[in-house]
Amino acid sequence: MVKRITVLGSTGSIGKQTLDVVSSQPEGMALFGISAHRDTHTLIEQANAYRPEVVACETAFDESKLPDGTQTIMGEGATAKLAAMREADVVVNGVSGFAALPPLIAALKNGKRVALANKESIVCGKSLIDETLRAYGGEILPVDSEQSAIFQCLQNGGRGEVEKLILTASGGPFWRMEREQLEQVTLEEALAHPTWTMGRKITIDSATLFNKGLEVIEASYLFDIEGDRIEVLIHPQSIVHSMVTYRDGTCMANMSKPDMRLPIQYAITYPERKPSVCSPLLLQNEQPLTFHKPDPERFGALKLAFEALRSGKTYPIAYNGANEAAVEAFCDGRIGFLDIERVVDYTLNQHSPGDAKSLAEIAEADRLVRKMANERIAGIAQER
Amino acid sequence: MVKRITVLGSTGSIGKQTLDVVSSQPEGMALFGISAHRDTHTLIEQANAYRPEVVACETAFDESKLPDGTQTIMGEGATAKLAAMREADVVVNGVSGFAALPPLIAALKNGKRVALANKESIVCGKSLIDETLRAYGGEILPVDSEQSAIFQCLQNGGRGEVEKLILTASGGPFWRMEREQLEQVTLEEALAHPTWTMGRKITIDSATLFNKGLEVIEASYLFDIEGDRIEVLIHPQSIVHSMVTYRDGTCMANMSKPDMRLPIQYAITYPERKPSVCSPLLLQNEQPLTFHKPDPERFGALKLAFEALRSGKTYPIAYNGANEAAVEAFCDGRIGFLDIERVVDYTLNQHSPGDAKSLAEIAEADRLVRKMANERIAGIAQER
Repeated sequence: MVKRITVLGSTGSIGKQTLDVVSSQPEGMALFGISAHRDTHTLIEQANAYRPEVVACETAFDESKLPDGTQTIMGEGATAKLAAMREADVVVNGVSGFAALPPLIAALKNGKRVALANKESIVCGKSLIDETLRAYGGEILPVDSEQSAIFQCLQNGGRGEVEKLILTASGGPFWRMEREQLEQVTLEEALAHPTWTMGRKITIDSATLFNKGLEVIEASYLFDIEGDRIEVLIHPQSIVHSMVTYRDGTCMANMSKPDMRLPIQYAITYPERKPSVCSPLLLQNEQPLTFHKPDPERFGALKLAFEALRSGKTYPIAYNGANEAAVEAFCDGRIGFLDIERVVDYTLNQHSPGDAKSLAEIAEADRLVRKMANERIAGIAQER
Repeated sequence: MVKRITVLGSTGSIGKQTLDVVSSQPEGMALFGISAHRDTHTLIEQANAYRPEVVACETAFDESKLPDGTQTIMGEGATAKLAAMREADVVVNGVSGFAALPPLIAALKNGKRVALANKESIVCGKSLIDETLRAYGGEILPVDSEQSAIFQCLQNGGRGEVEKLILTASGGPFWRMEREQLEQVTLEEALAHPTWTMGRKITIDSATLFNKGLEVIEASYLFDIEGDRIEVLIHPQSIVHSMVTYRDGTCMANMSKPDMRLPIQYAITYPERKPSVCSPLLLQNEQPLTFHKPDPERFGALKLAFEALRSGKTYPIAYNGANEAAVEAFCDGRIGFLDIERVVDYTLNQHSPGDAKSLAEIAEADRLVRKMANERIAGIAQER
């Protein structure tokens, strides 16, 4: 059976790799729809190259440049409208940041499988997502290589037999640096990730380990496992994507060459595995595999993530929103590298927790968090 | 439900570790029977320590030293008689060498689960075992750490989606040595295995890589996968016990501290995983994990195994029998370390293949093979 695929955020890194996967499987997959936020140029190029039936964009664009017969959805909410369309079998959600949540909910409300590459939506929308899944019966398959690895390693035992989820982290370019050196890290240095080619936000998050902090919360929510059963290990070679240990002492590990197209494809084809364009892993040609406990004193992002997870309520929203605001400020040169962590720490401390259950409540909690974070950012910027 | 366990070859290395597992799980396992070949001293000690209901021995012994009420089976065939007893739920077969086959068949004929630690029985008895499984519906769960690892990694995809089974090998103490150095290896050096504490025969087999050769044939037979889908990688740290790669590029690996009690326990409790006495794996405390392609010129055991597997018929019996004879001769100081490989090579070359389908035919093929191997051994011994 051919699966009809919709790609949300098709002009981003995950979106492009998804289009690559879909076009590599002409017998098993067909492209139904694509969407973008504002990169209309790339979106139009993709529409002409891959010929989806529907093209959606949050920003207006020149429809005449699309192939004849292409259906269009334009303006705010276009992505969620595309996500809700019944014709697709799988919605790959590669929208970045908090904006991925509304289309995720829209797709789940149609009982769809969502291949989810976005962590923020899970971190912020946990209770809304759970409720939607219960009411409408869709499913979420993780696309993130670490969560996909955990998902696979959990196939080797019962849930009550799990000892720990072990998320691996490349550690980014700076994990061996001392605090004093971290203080001086520039945007250019932070964007040079050693193993994965990714978007800008996630590359910075990977250097600060906030990406891993978000994954800790995401894994806890996705797999319904408490934070004290989740561990992070630095694994600079990025070959082992994550592991699960069981109570008998067994550790199952999921490995491959670092290539996002593999977990994207698996989230679409699961429970089947199809041949892929990814090169096979030849361990004899790889560097020795090493694993290191991260130092919580050096990278506060992990410590803050476990705290936010333990505190529950809207704390994970605060963790995510404050980080997004701080990364933006770092990218704009307004604050330094370690200030990202300080902004999040401050915001979590000042946060008045609540229960955010609807999209509107989550958005409001997110807005307040960013406001507070931005006030702190302005303060830091002034001091510099 | 308490599982009643019979341990065949209880005085050997696997047998002792199985008794350790059974006694560590008082709520889930009870010891039904134990058997030994000729170590009556240890057998009597075990009977008094672990209180099985039945004690079997191929050699006569003083029954009065057993706890009151212990049932005994003595003399040739005692092990197979114990294996056939209906009361046990799982028979752990830790008998070493070719002698493990008759009790394996006896247990399978009673529809039992056999936790099998012995490779020779599979390698020599493939068609008889298959026929017995078809007719009586028992099951074989592998205890060997490599086969147990493969068994677990095969849970992550469909059989048609498997690309390769990758058996890891510690490489033994000599895998970096040149041929000239290997020629001089002494028995004492060969018995010093770097990571696993095992019996004498298997330790020598581990140094020659004949153990891995037997595992290649065993894996092919156990999991019904042709030889060209099986690979061996040297992995000196013995943390990754084996791997399965899938056609999408995924590689699943099974890891743990090297401790045979873990796969023994899993073969008994599968599909469940129980807490165990094995210490958890902390990868941050382990040496870097390395993987190396073995050099077939340096260790002919692997090359010969793939040849025997490809040739089929009684060639695997010849591979196994010639190796057993040669290892015995090496342990007795009659031939050198590399002569083991030469004896097997010679025997395979001279072998007249047939179809051995019954226990009697297999035993006869085995006898002829050993006769030929021993003739060659005598020739080499004379030349020395």
